[in-house]
Amino acid sequence: MNDGPRLFSILRQGPYLIASVHTALDDSQLVRFQNDLVERIGSDRARGVVIDVAALDVLDSFASRTLRDMAEMARLRGAVTVIVGIQPDVAFAMVQLGMDTGRVVTALDLEEGLAELDRGARDPTAQRP
Amino acid sequence: MNDGPRLFSILRQGPYLIASVHTALDDSQLVRFQNDLVERIGSDRARGVVIDVAALDVLDSFASRTLRDMAEMARLRGAVTVIVGIQPDVAFAMVQLGMDTGRVVTALDLEEGLAELDRGARDPTAQRP
Repeated sequence: MNDGPRLFSILRQGPYLIASVHTALDDSQLVRFQNDLVERIGSDRARGVVIDVAALDVLDSFASRTLRDMAEMARLRGAVTVIVGIQPDVAFAMVQLGMDTGRVVTALDLEEGLAELDRGARDPTAQRP
Repeated sequence: MNDGPRLFSILRQGPYLIASVHTALDDSQLVRFQNDLVERIGSDRARGVVIDVAALDVLDSFASRTLRDMAEMARLRGAVTVIVGIQPDVAFAMVQLGMDTGRVVTALDLEEGLAELDRGARDPTAQRP
């Protein structure tokens, strides 16, 4: 499985982790990504996570659910998650397919994602006016 | 029930209470923990509570609901609650089982939990701009 280029990377930047997906992941790779990330939140004492999915030109329901689960697990471990880089086509497909993404914080790109974390990444489950 | 080692401890640190669960609690023990904690919030005039569940390697739906209820009761008594030390496996299981943990403030460990309280522990149920 580790032949060839890395499928994803998890880098630390200050109190944040930047997790980039480099290519389309199959389901087992997604699960590995999930486990690695949750592990790293503990070992790096991360307070925020940016998941960059800009390299994905498709996001099926399993991947979408996995991202949502990752955000929730990260929250239980004390880190806020922002998903960045959802492509226009992907956003279109997700909405058309009626995927539930309600509780996930999103931002345009990595820069905006980090800015969002710096702003204290408002908890998306909080009720705001 | 009081034979053997203590099942949980509630310690005071300044304006905060640190409640640690030392081992898996059965349902009646959980209820006792809950009652003790709510009592202590009043007697110690606590403004914040950290509940450390790092010793738990499983958190079933009753325990999870009890923790949520404790946080809500503490809030009604004027104290903010942060749950810390949810293990990766536990987080995974909770998310997979779809447990609703939406309103509970979480942090990685005791240190982060106290820091969160010091930051004024943004109440996730509070309405913010």
